[in-house]
Amino acid sequence: MEYKSQKFNSNDSSIVYQVLESRRDVRHFVPNKNIDNDKLDRILSAAYSAPSVGLMQPWRIIQIKNPDIRTNISQLVQEEINKTAIAFEERKREFLKLKVEGIKECSELLVVVQIPDDGTIFGRRTMPEEMALCSTACAIQNMWLASRVENIGMGWVSMFEPQQLASLLECPQNSKPIAILCLGYDAKNYEQPMLEIENWRIRKPQDSFITIDKWQHKNN
Amino acid sequence: MEYKSQKFNSNDSSIVYQVLESRRDVRHFVPNKNIDNDKLDRILSAAYSAPSVGLMQPWRIIQIKNPDIRTNISQLVQEEINKTAIAFEERKREFLKLKVEGIKECSELLVVVQIPDDGTIFGRRTMPEEMALCSTACAIQNMWLASRVENIGMGWVSMFEPQQLASLLECPQNSKPIAILCLGYDAKNYEQPMLEIENWRIRKPQDSFITIDKWQHKNN
Repeated sequence: MEYKSQKFNSNDSSIVYQVLESRRDVRHFVPNKNIDNDKLDRILSAAYSAPSVGLMQPWRIIQIKNPDIRTNISQLVQEEINKTAIAFEERKREFLKLKVEGIKECSELLVVVQIPDDGTIFGRRTMPEEMALCSTACAIQNMWLASRVENIGMGWVSMFEPQQLASLLECPQNSKPIAILCLGYDAKNYEQPMLEIENWRIRKPQDSFITIDKWQHKNN
Repeated sequence: MEYKSQKFNSNDSSIVYQVLESRRDVRHFVPNKNIDNDKLDRILSAAYSAPSVGLMQPWRIIQIKNPDIRTNISQLVQEEINKTAIAFEERKREFLKLKVEGIKECSELLVVVQIPDDGTIFGRRTMPEEMALCSTACAIQNMWLASRVENIGMGWVSMFEPQQLASLLECPQNSKPIAILCLGYDAKNYEQPMLEIENWRIRKPQDSFITIDKWQHKNN
């Protein structure tokens, strides 16, 4: 077996870590600013580079161009924001102050749909739904990182009733929209996740995630 | 609102796309070669940079150092490979020729566990399991890309019974291991996914993933 893997250097890794660390869930966009088609194509191609269980590629991406459909999506999300607010009870007011999506202002609106199970067995005999979903999530993360290095912010909105959104976009039975992606030029730069800056929740310390040889409860 | 987002240039984006496109699910590792602790720490820190729904951070990473536990994990996977082979029926022989994991030879073995639901409502009222799982998948994808730019190959093994692996690693009830990650130096470089090269399955064409304003059946 020959060893001829592509070599990256420390400058390359420094750039990748900067991209990973500066990626944010963006909700504040500069309005009325278009994303070049070339840029958007490259971002979409990043999804194509994603891993998928058994090469299943279980995602589809719907690009929303019709402004009426965008308005309908915005309404669906607003309904879910209201339901979420009620679920928060004593944190309701605090929650409603947060900006949780930028659907109306973003330059491009994409919906990512989990396809109906295609029967792929490879790598998913014991966890069929989980592995299909993880594949789609990796594709979205690739797009997120590609957006960041293209100086485009992306936000993943998950506050919606999937069946309602599926109906609106004429998705087939047993498919499920899992992400509304808002893309555009950032109007704000957050050095930390917005939910931390707004004192909604803080992240756990980094060393609480790793244990040796078995699960251990650490710091949480 | 001020616009002070970090700017990346075309060299930066070229590097990121190279990393995205050269990332492979690696199963062929150079044996007996250690990964520096600094490198491994940086790869693990990439998980920490991942997005998560409502800042839930619903993953834990178990680093397997005990060789007996590695052997046990390898056995669990081999059992599932055998069950998968039976499920393939007429493709059984063809499947058994594929190398689907590198657990014994890899330099570092990590298990990623989905934590029990912590009650996070933000962003997951309608899709609680899906959004937690997507968060963990994004963390794994970050590690995958960090590994690639560190010239380390990573493979995500999902052929195992999650409850058996959970027992082995003393994971709490309602947690679920979703990935066995093999990391090491690539012994082979695949320009395409191995499953394509081995004629197991080919990827769908790139334009079959994108539709406008609604779902449409395209090319598959």
